[in-house]
Amino acid sequence: MEQNNKKSAILISVGDELLIGQTINSNAAWLGEKLLAFGIEVVEMITVGDNKSHMLRVLHESHQRAELVIVTGGLGPTRDDLTALVLGEYFQKNMVFNEEVFSWIKAFKMAQKKPVNELHRKQAYLPEDFIYFRNLAGTAPAMVYRDNGTIFVSLPGVPYEMKSLMNEYVFPWINKKISRKIFLTKTLHTAAVPESEIASILSDFEDNLADGLSLAYLPSLARVKIRINSRAVTEEEAKAALTKAESKIRELLGDMIYGENEDSLEGVVGRLLMEKKQFLGTAESCTGGYIAQMITSVPGASQYFNGSVVAYSNEVKMDLLGVKKTTLINHGAVSEETVVEMVKGICRRLKVENAIAVSGIAGPQGGSPEKPIGMVCLAVGNVENQVVDTVYLNHNRKLNIEKSAFLALNMLRLFLQRP
Amino acid sequence: MEQNNKKSAILISVGDELLIGQTINSNAAWLGEKLLAFGIEVVEMITVGDNKSHMLRVLHESHQRAELVIVTGGLGPTRDDLTALVLGEYFQKNMVFNEEVFSWIKAFKMAQKKPVNELHRKQAYLPEDFIYFRNLAGTAPAMVYRDNGTIFVSLPGVPYEMKSLMNEYVFPWINKKISRKIFLTKTLHTAAVPESEIASILSDFEDNLADGLSLAYLPSLARVKIRINSRAVTEEEAKAALTKAESKIRELLGDMIYGENEDSLEGVVGRLLMEKKQFLGTAESCTGGYIAQMITSVPGASQYFNGSVVAYSNEVKMDLLGVKKTTLINHGAVSEETVVEMVKGICRRLKVENAIAVSGIAGPQGGSPEKPIGMVCLAVGNVENQVVDTVYLNHNRKLNIEKSAFLALNMLRLFLQRP
Repeated sequence: MEQNNKKSAILISVGDELLIGQTINSNAAWLGEKLLAFGIEVVEMITVGDNKSHMLRVLHESHQRAELVIVTGGLGPTRDDLTALVLGEYFQKNMVFNEEVFSWIKAFKMAQKKPVNELHRKQAYLPEDFIYFRNLAGTAPAMVYRDNGTIFVSLPGVPYEMKSLMNEYVFPWINKKISRKIFLTKTLHTAAVPESEIASILSDFEDNLADGLSLAYLPSLARVKIRINSRAVTEEEAKAALTKAESKIRELLGDMIYGENEDSLEGVVGRLLMEKKQFLGTAESCTGGYIAQMITSVPGASQYFNGSVVAYSNEVKMDLLGVKKTTLINHGAVSEETVVEMVKGICRRLKVENAIAVSGIAGPQGGSPEKPIGMVCLAVGNVENQVVDTVYLNHNRKLNIEKSAFLALNMLRLFLQRP
Repeated sequence: MEQNNKKSAILISVGDELLIGQTINSNAAWLGEKLLAFGIEVVEMITVGDNKSHMLRVLHESHQRAELVIVTGGLGPTRDDLTALVLGEYFQKNMVFNEEVFSWIKAFKMAQKKPVNELHRKQAYLPEDFIYFRNLAGTAPAMVYRDNGTIFVSLPGVPYEMKSLMNEYVFPWINKKISRKIFLTKTLHTAAVPESEIASILSDFEDNLADGLSLAYLPSLARVKIRINSRAVTEEEAKAALTKAESKIRELLGDMIYGENEDSLEGVVGRLLMEKKQFLGTAESCTGGYIAQMITSVPGASQYFNGSVVAYSNEVKMDLLGVKKTTLINHGAVSEETVVEMVKGICRRLKVENAIAVSGIAGPQGGSPEKPIGMVCLAVGNVENQVVDTVYLNHNRKLNIEKSAFLALNMLRLFLQRP
């Protein structure tokens, strides 16, 4: 074993686009969260430009202080991409043509039926003695190297490439090579209840939490993630405390909770439909297909999802969904009456047992005193029974759409969970 | 004038919530962009936790290298907020009660009809000799201090408080006190061409770039942003060089470029439809509504978008889109023949002049040797003319969907731009 009194991890993000604010550094946040859940604390995050001397300096500084250094970015095929070169120079390694990496690049381009060019060949010139991991979503491989008690990891900056390489190869590889703390977490997801209300329901419970346990609330659009953190000397102790806390929270919050850890609301709705062996269709106005694409983002959605009609105009609402002209005239396209007819219409048209319908004013134009921007009518159900609701949202267009879609899906979840 | 051979700016973000990934650091990106537009280059961004020794170390390092150091965060009233204390210690200043700052805090709380408490009083204990600026959106003031050729700025971490203090006070204050460079950028967006191909087309041009000009490539799913950077002594020179480079790149890349700066592909397609006073509909299988929601994410999309049919089952493809049963039997749902019929069917059904149709295998299941996962058929056009293509993608389900949607929209753009 190498002697090691260094602590924790430092993240280095490379790229001029980060320094000039063209790209927001979401990689660092993702890595911070995942590493913590893995038991490794990030103590510093550094962003530098595509600049050799700056990169060499921060590598040197991080080498002194961290047990794990993760460098993201700078691995592309163009001349502003310097990471491989700089790592080679820093560790005094020759840059050699790596046949295996080049075969991965060729296979990747071939699967896309695209040619391999000189720049791809350049991407295969890499520092000797490093370990390489195959990138299935792009051409730049991940690389790892150990020196003087520090593990260096280099990853492409494209978020989905970086994430998949971390999950597939890097976490398993560093698993036994680095000191980790016993730190378990579990996340419960709630929908449609504000953070303040959840915190107040859990207030007494939180005041009396056992040592080593803590709660964190992570609110986002119409949902709150509750992360339970459990630290202990042994894994068994940490697990027992976590399980006990979880069951108490579930008892207190009931069906406000729709899932845990990696669950998504659309995945949970899919499971409920499969259990019932029933199908779903959506009839969408202001959400413009957003609900359909959420549902179909789940693998295997064709087992319970038949399709959708996005009815952006009144003609389509009448022609394809059978909404009555009198309903549109008397109540308007944004009304509970209209969305109820949309539910019935889509159930008949697609021959499905369950439907979601949404009509609203997403903004930034189109509001009136009686029907302001952000007013959205939501309905779920079938030809016989519907549940309907009207909400008033006050975000921008994009977030009003996302929130409407999420709330509608949550109404369907509760409808499907009814005894 | 103090002697000054330091360069540019360093940003320090303070807060455990950044290191554990609970908050994405959008402040740094905002500051990077605004400072660059102001003529000050950010050369490094550092994030540290609420930890005194780490903060002192990065202050010291930044002091050596930067002309401007901006610290955000750590100014709240709770015990984990250390920035004022640490700055005081670093510059060896006494912490004194600041009557003026306390009067601002009192006025702010009074406007909210909220009481002032002990913690607010603590927020008014601040380092001597600093200059303070009033925060109209919160209780923590901004502070600035000059030492040995470096300007230090401390700002609250709440984004809207930070931004308003920067705009109102800090930019005007540093205006004459710091060396500014002329640095202009422009970003061009290309679609459906790999980074390596673009780089190879621009290779000769890039080899002969004039002094002060540089290019950066920012690839993401099926697109590449090309950022042109132009540095010069005067704004006129920088602008002239930028304009010349842009027109040369546009000449070399032609219609690979779909937009610039803040343009989105869905926005560009919307503008083309409005110019033609025509409507669009989509018929989507594997993209599941993703294209429709992209199009309707643009404000005012109802002026050119009528709706969509998401046909996830063969029945819906036949019933609502008029795809022939024989076509599905002979060629399959994922075939160029099917998507061409989907284009014609949706044009007729929604009475629109333009359509996009997509059918493919997004994965992770459903592939076969002849039709592998990632095979996607795309068609655009109208009842008379269609353009059709088949692509082979090799990402995960989510990205295969997003890339298919983007490529289909880009095909429509090229179709609409045909002379």
